[in-house]
Amino acid sequence: MTEFRLDPRLENDSVPLVDFGLCSVRLMKDGNYPWLVMIPRKNDVTEIIDLAPIEQIVLMEEIGQVSKVLKSITACQKLNVAALGNMVPQLHVHVIARFESDAAWPGPVWGAVPARAYEAQSLEDLVEGLQIALLG
Amino acid sequence: MTEFRLDPRLENDSVPLVDFGLCSVRLMKDGNYPWLVMIPRKNDVTEIIDLAPIEQIVLMEEIGQVSKVLKSITACQKLNVAALGNMVPQLHVHVIARFESDAAWPGPVWGAVPARAYEAQSLEDLVEGLQIALLG
Repeated sequence: MTEFRLDPRLENDSVPLVDFGLCSVRLMKDGNYPWLVMIPRKNDVTEIIDLAPIEQIVLMEEIGQVSKVLKSITACQKLNVAALGNMVPQLHVHVIARFESDAAWPGPVWGAVPARAYEAQSLEDLVEGLQIALLG
Repeated sequence: MTEFRLDPRLENDSVPLVDFGLCSVRLMKDGNYPWLVMIPRKNDVTEIIDLAPIEQIVLMEEIGQVSKVLKSITACQKLNVAALGNMVPQLHVHVIARFESDAAWPGPVWGAVPARAYEAQSLEDLVEGLQIALLG
C-alpha cells in the first residue's frame, strides 16, 4: 500500500487535529476564522467524484461530524463547507465557522484578508478543545 | 404538507433545470462560468447538518450526479462544490465548472466579477443540453 502524501502547502498552512476513517482533520493557521480542513487520505484524488461512491458517503458523514463539533464549539452564525481546490489540487474540504463580525463576512474567506497568526496559547487551547470534541 | 418555498433571490438569479429526488437543480444566470446550484426542497434548512442523515447522503449522491454531468459537458479543469449561504440562508450547494481562463481563476467566483448575461440562444442551448444530460 502506498503511503498517503499530504500536499506540502496544506501541511504548512495547518496543524493536525484527528484522523477519522477517511479524512485527516486539520486546523488552518489563520486566527481570523475557526477554519478546519478535511483531507481524505487517498493519493491522486482532486474531485469528490474521484472518490468511490462509498467513500463519498463516508466523506459526507465525516463532514457532518466536523460541522456539528465546529458549530457547537464556536457558536458560529453560519458554516461554510467547500471543496474548491483551484490552488491545491489534492482534494480537501473546508469547514469554516463564520460570524457576521468576521474579517470577510459576508464574502468567502479565500483571499479576503491575510492569515492572522494565532497566539501560541490560544492555538494550543483551541487544538485541544477541538481534538476532545472531535474524538468524543 | 407545506409547499416548498424557493428563496426569491435564488429564484431570480437562476433558471430551473431539473428536480431530483431531494434537490432542485438550477443554472445561475451568469455566463462567466457554467454554474449550477442545487437546492434541497425542504423549508427552514440552512446547514447541511439541518438535513436528516439519510437526506445528507442523498444530497451527496445528487452532488455526484450533477458534478459528473457538469464536468462531462464543460470539460472543465476543476469543479468547485460549496455550501456557503452567508447571503442567502436557504441551503443551496454551488457546483461550478472552473477554467484557468475564467474571470475569477484561481480565486472563488463569489463577488469576483459582475454576472454576465447569457445570450438568449446560448442560454437556451445550455439549458437544454444540461437537462438532457441530467435526466439521462
